[in-house]
Amino acid sequence: MTVFAFAQQQEPAQALATELGTACSIVECHRFPDGESCIQIEPELIADSCVVYASLVQPDNITLPLFFLAHTLRDYGVQHITLVAPYLAYMRQDKIFKSGQGVTARYYARLLSSCFDKLVTVDPHLHRIHDLADIYSIETKLVRAAPAVSNWLKANVSSPVIIGPDSESAQWVKKLAKNSGAPFLVLEKTRRGDRDVEVIVPQVEKWTDCTPVLFDDIISTGKTMIETIKHLLAAGLSAPVCIGIHAVFADAAWQQIKQAGAARVVTCNTIPHASNCIDLSQVLAINI
Amino acid sequence: MTVFAFAQQQEPAQALATELGTACSIVECHRFPDGESCIQIEPELIADSCVVYASLVQPDNITLPLFFLAHTLRDYGVQHITLVAPYLAYMRQDKIFKSGQGVTARYYARLLSSCFDKLVTVDPHLHRIHDLADIYSIETKLVRAAPAVSNWLKANVSSPVIIGPDSESAQWVKKLAKNSGAPFLVLEKTRRGDRDVEVIVPQVEKWTDCTPVLFDDIISTGKTMIETIKHLLAAGLSAPVCIGIHAVFADAAWQQIKQAGAARVVTCNTIPHASNCIDLSQVLAINI
Repeated sequence: MTVFAFAQQQEPAQALATELGTACSIVECHRFPDGESCIQIEPELIADSCVVYASLVQPDNITLPLFFLAHTLRDYGVQHITLVAPYLAYMRQDKIFKSGQGVTARYYARLLSSCFDKLVTVDPHLHRIHDLADIYSIETKLVRAAPAVSNWLKANVSSPVIIGPDSESAQWVKKLAKNSGAPFLVLEKTRRGDRDVEVIVPQVEKWTDCTPVLFDDIISTGKTMIETIKHLLAAGLSAPVCIGIHAVFADAAWQQIKQAGAARVVTCNTIPHASNCIDLSQVLAINI
Repeated sequence: MTVFAFAQQQEPAQALATELGTACSIVECHRFPDGESCIQIEPELIADSCVVYASLVQPDNITLPLFFLAHTLRDYGVQHITLVAPYLAYMRQDKIFKSGQGVTARYYARLLSSCFDKLVTVDPHLHRIHDLADIYSIETKLVRAAPAVSNWLKANVSSPVIIGPDSESAQWVKKLAKNSGAPFLVLEKTRRGDRDVEVIVPQVEKWTDCTPVLFDDIISTGKTMIETIKHLLAAGLSAPVCIGIHAVFADAAWQQIKQAGAARVVTCNTIPHASNCIDLSQVLAINI
């Protein structure tokens, strides 16, 4: 077994390969002047069964090269390809929000299912779609970040109270609270646009002796975190530790969250980012 | 029947819809902060049979939205979708040039074949692959630009001699020469890299009373055209008219060809560009 990955994701792919005790091979991706891509693998590292490591952040840039990679591996005789996509894209467009739109979560699942034999991913954004098997026709393995996040919390944060910024975060907050043996709260969020969010915070004064730990699956624009931090600080709580599983960080989100008053901003290494503190290589390797 | 197209290609799509006597509907493409795309169609314009107009220049940006568009149309009940791709992408990677690469022409054909029922395209770059049916599993219709280019030549250029810059261009040059009743030459090209080309020009002095018409299917970096222009001018020929079917024009190619001494640089409207002078809407409409 070899782990193939594009150069931008060499670090987590190498960490996974080390856990698996196998080689990590970097896939070259050349861009021609006309905008077409050409990928190149190391054929001598081909095995019957291969892993492709590709976290699917900014997916529109990586999807076509990924499609080409899968087909190239097939042409070189690979029988079984497992896609390890710690961050799985297109899970949020899980219904028709406006007439004339489609359910891209389903379409994207069809595309990946046509390329790979197995998908391993970390805490996908399952909201209206409750099971990856509802949209993926291949074997899927869902890895939970909560145990690793819980271990990090125990080592780094005293008296945590885990706070979910909205109802969608409840599933992740509850798992983390259970793993950590910590209390938790789930707040309410109203979305006014892609980058405009209002957060309603109930009475939180009873937690003034605790360290608030804001926890969400995806930190994208960071607006939800930022609004919540402001309300928590205004309510007299300590500066919160913000933990996201997936460091999407659109725009200048990371800086803005720190500026809003977060004590720390910490993520898992599902998307390569300077905030990555929680390594999931081991739990990924177990699930391949 | 409705013609659907993305906003950047509204003009040629509308011209095609006018020829077909049908509506042209612009597909909105929203980009979320995390880089994911969401397309939106006008459902009231859905018909059992639809046309998607999408010239596939810079294909990596448009392919995933195009894939989503096809699946959205299916979800809204469309039975038959014809893709009109006047410029067809990924035709040049038609063999394994280096070990470890794949044949993206085949993979891309598989992707489009999974989305559409019929493909209509203009002079695809068929080189080592001789027939679209060898790689596309759907019905394909190959439209020739030569008759329209020939009409343009007759109206705009006196005593043309048609010159193909390399052996790959021979198929297009011969068709144009036959349509125009003009003499032709095919030169020889040596490629040293993506942007580095040497052209070997045989004796051309016998054509000094003619207007040289450099003709190729794709003008991409323009290096082939530029080298050829220099050699023709050095040989004492008039400033050539440069005609490309497909105005890919990577980098600053268009300006550079004009600066190299072209009398004019003219293209067909298979890719929207300021050089478009030869309208193929009518011949496209006949073939849908």
